[in-house]
Amino acid sequence: MSLSHAQEFEIQERIKDLCFAAREAWFSLSNLPADKRNEILTCVAKKLEQEKQVIFAANQVDLEQGTKDGLSNALLDRLALNEKGFQGILESLKQIAALPDPLGILLENTTRPNGLQITKITVPIGVIGIVYESRPNVTVEAAAISIKSGNAVILKGGKEAFHSNTVLANCFTEVLDELKLPKGFVTLVPFKDRLATLELLKQTGKVDLIIPRGGSGLIEFVLENSRIPVIKHDKGLCHVFIDEEADFKKAIVISVNAKVSRPSVCNAMETLLVHDEISQALLPALIGALRKENVRLKGCEKCRAIDPSLEVATEEDWGTEYLDKILSIRIVNTLQEAIAHIEKYGSRHSDAIITENKKTAAKFIQQVDSSAVFVNASTRFNDGFEFGLGAEMGISTEKIHARGPMGLREMTTYKYIVLGNGHVRV
Amino acid sequence: MSLSHAQEFEIQERIKDLCFAAREAWFSLSNLPADKRNEILTCVAKKLEQEKQVIFAANQVDLEQGTKDGLSNALLDRLALNEKGFQGILESLKQIAALPDPLGILLENTTRPNGLQITKITVPIGVIGIVYESRPNVTVEAAAISIKSGNAVILKGGKEAFHSNTVLANCFTEVLDELKLPKGFVTLVPFKDRLATLELLKQTGKVDLIIPRGGSGLIEFVLENSRIPVIKHDKGLCHVFIDEEADFKKAIVISVNAKVSRPSVCNAMETLLVHDEISQALLPALIGALRKENVRLKGCEKCRAIDPSLEVATEEDWGTEYLDKILSIRIVNTLQEAIAHIEKYGSRHSDAIITENKKTAAKFIQQVDSSAVFVNASTRFNDGFEFGLGAEMGISTEKIHARGPMGLREMTTYKYIVLGNGHVRV
Repeated sequence: MSLSHAQEFEIQERIKDLCFAAREAWFSLSNLPADKRNEILTCVAKKLEQEKQVIFAANQVDLEQGTKDGLSNALLDRLALNEKGFQGILESLKQIAALPDPLGILLENTTRPNGLQITKITVPIGVIGIVYESRPNVTVEAAAISIKSGNAVILKGGKEAFHSNTVLANCFTEVLDELKLPKGFVTLVPFKDRLATLELLKQTGKVDLIIPRGGSGLIEFVLENSRIPVIKHDKGLCHVFIDEEADFKKAIVISVNAKVSRPSVCNAMETLLVHDEISQALLPALIGALRKENVRLKGCEKCRAIDPSLEVATEEDWGTEYLDKILSIRIVNTLQEAIAHIEKYGSRHSDAIITENKKTAAKFIQQVDSSAVFVNASTRFNDGFEFGLGAEMGISTEKIHARGPMGLREMTTYKYIVLGNGHVRV
Repeated sequence: MSLSHAQEFEIQERIKDLCFAAREAWFSLSNLPADKRNEILTCVAKKLEQEKQVIFAANQVDLEQGTKDGLSNALLDRLALNEKGFQGILESLKQIAALPDPLGILLENTTRPNGLQITKITVPIGVIGIVYESRPNVTVEAAAISIKSGNAVILKGGKEAFHSNTVLANCFTEVLDELKLPKGFVTLVPFKDRLATLELLKQTGKVDLIIPRGGSGLIEFVLENSRIPVIKHDKGLCHVFIDEEADFKKAIVISVNAKVSRPSVCNAMETLLVHDEISQALLPALIGALRKENVRLKGCEKCRAIDPSLEVATEEDWGTEYLDKILSIRIVNTLQEAIAHIEKYGSRHSDAIITENKKTAAKFIQQVDSSAVFVNASTRFNDGFEFGLGAEMGISTEKIHARGPMGLREMTTYKYIVLGNGHVRV
């Protein structure tokens, strides 16, 4: 469905206007005290409870449209809001409200030899644009994290969740209105078209940061078109390396957990690397444990020499994020070969080593360039809640600003405050 | 001068190759101990001294070519390397070598309720591409800061400094070679063409960060084309606001210092805001002091009612970074009006208030969204050395990762290290 020029123009103008309004709202609200920010979240939780039936009805409309449009079962599943999911949203609002204030934290405090007093404190980033897909709970959680950290937020959800997102975002704007705060603090982009996203990505000076969360198509589109800094939440091609000095029991339970506890997420294992020295002894039991969980297994030639029933793993497999119960296994001769494989094919997300040798572990930790490196623990722990951040915007695959789990603190920047007494620079 | 397809292809292939080599070098060197990184810098300082005549000769070639090409005096001035500038380069190398190691700093250390031990430490970012103009000293300082912080660096200098940059960068590669370290750790892009920059900006997966330093044309080009995260070093449109409760003496010395101590840099004042209550009493003396320093003055209507000899400041003036001895003066009725002016026209770089009223200062600090906010001090202090960072890559105009002065610490990222004992996620 292509748009007329008039429609395109209208979308572009509306996006500019709503970004301007968001910036104005942020400017007037950037000093909102913590209790007021928390009050917004508490009121939104109440409002959501009141509007529960309306929310479920809107979700139903999206689900019916999605079924008609032939969305996959996996997508419909992520789109569906059930009672448990709804309670989870309410719970997350309460948890975020209860977390400590990430603003005004003193990072540094020095007096320079010339007497200038310099302090560095955390402040909100400003207006944050979040571009995401499917799951309607992201609408509430992203808005809540943004408010808590003093940022205004512009939400651009997927078209498949349009009705659900609209009623959820309305709960925020109604609460802001009731509290006599500018509605521009939380804005849902009222268009389904990608042109709206494109225009959002051009609003430098009004929007300070773009966070894309979704499939590679979405991430690519944002990276290609954004003039605003981007913190992407991209894929995870995670590895577990079982060293020759691994404890077999740990190796098996961790491998199974990293693969099957939730195969569709970014911190799930996609490739298992096994040291040649122990491959004969370990692989049969390991393969058995994975097969018991219905994992489809592919292997390198050496693996297939041990178990010919494995499918052939091709070059393409080493670079594939399956997000499914599929696993490629490769036998490596040395620790260095394992590290080189991870450097070549990995996505610098979450990688683990299973070993009882501390020196080997230390080398792996130092040389693997990932946001989180695990020793004798599952990659699945790379998560804001598991790391104790309390809330999570997602898992950043950037190296700058926020690496790995992005919590409230990562939603802030800092400001230098310099106090003088007529100081001039010579 | 347009390139043939064969030449374009050659440039693109060479850029890919050198980025690959940089990544390989970084991978093998990311664990280089601090004393080895410092040794590189000390050896480069010696090498530069040995090669001094060759360096000056190359700079002379650039200057002659620049004169022939009709470069402005300001540009030629920035390009020229004199004895004082050369000694400054040697001094900065020594200073950077003497600074504490920014790597391996423990940022957090927790044991989770399930027993997982989580530590967060600073690590290098990886391969950093620096795109800059004119001043050849940037070649040495940017490379030195990158090495000190464990990053490999790819330098793309301006074509006007091509010969100077080449001999300076050669000093690094020769030292790396002598120390038997991979030369890919420091690479100067061996092409003058912008196509080389364009290709560099596409090397995702090999280059982790792009830092552009230069005029708005360069910054725009990088923002438009980069697929790699960018930390830009953009313009500064800085303000000084003289409040009604200002000390006049401080107001005058700070205004003069902020404007004239170095008008060509980003932390110089471009617009002076004066509270209406004191404008009649203060402006004549202030204007006199600025005129004595040969500052060309423009003013709003109210200013011109006080001193009709001021030129007319237009709407365009409020948004102009003069980088010269030119200043626009505006009279405002309230603190809020001053803050709103800064929000509308400023570049969120460095803004100052002159006031003896602490409450007024506190409001200004809170509401002005700039990397550094000054009270009774000159905007010219927004600088890595003045802030005590010891070395400076430049002054970031981003809000994410590095805001304001970018020192060694801002050239690092972090990594989570998670130690378990067979931990799996339930």
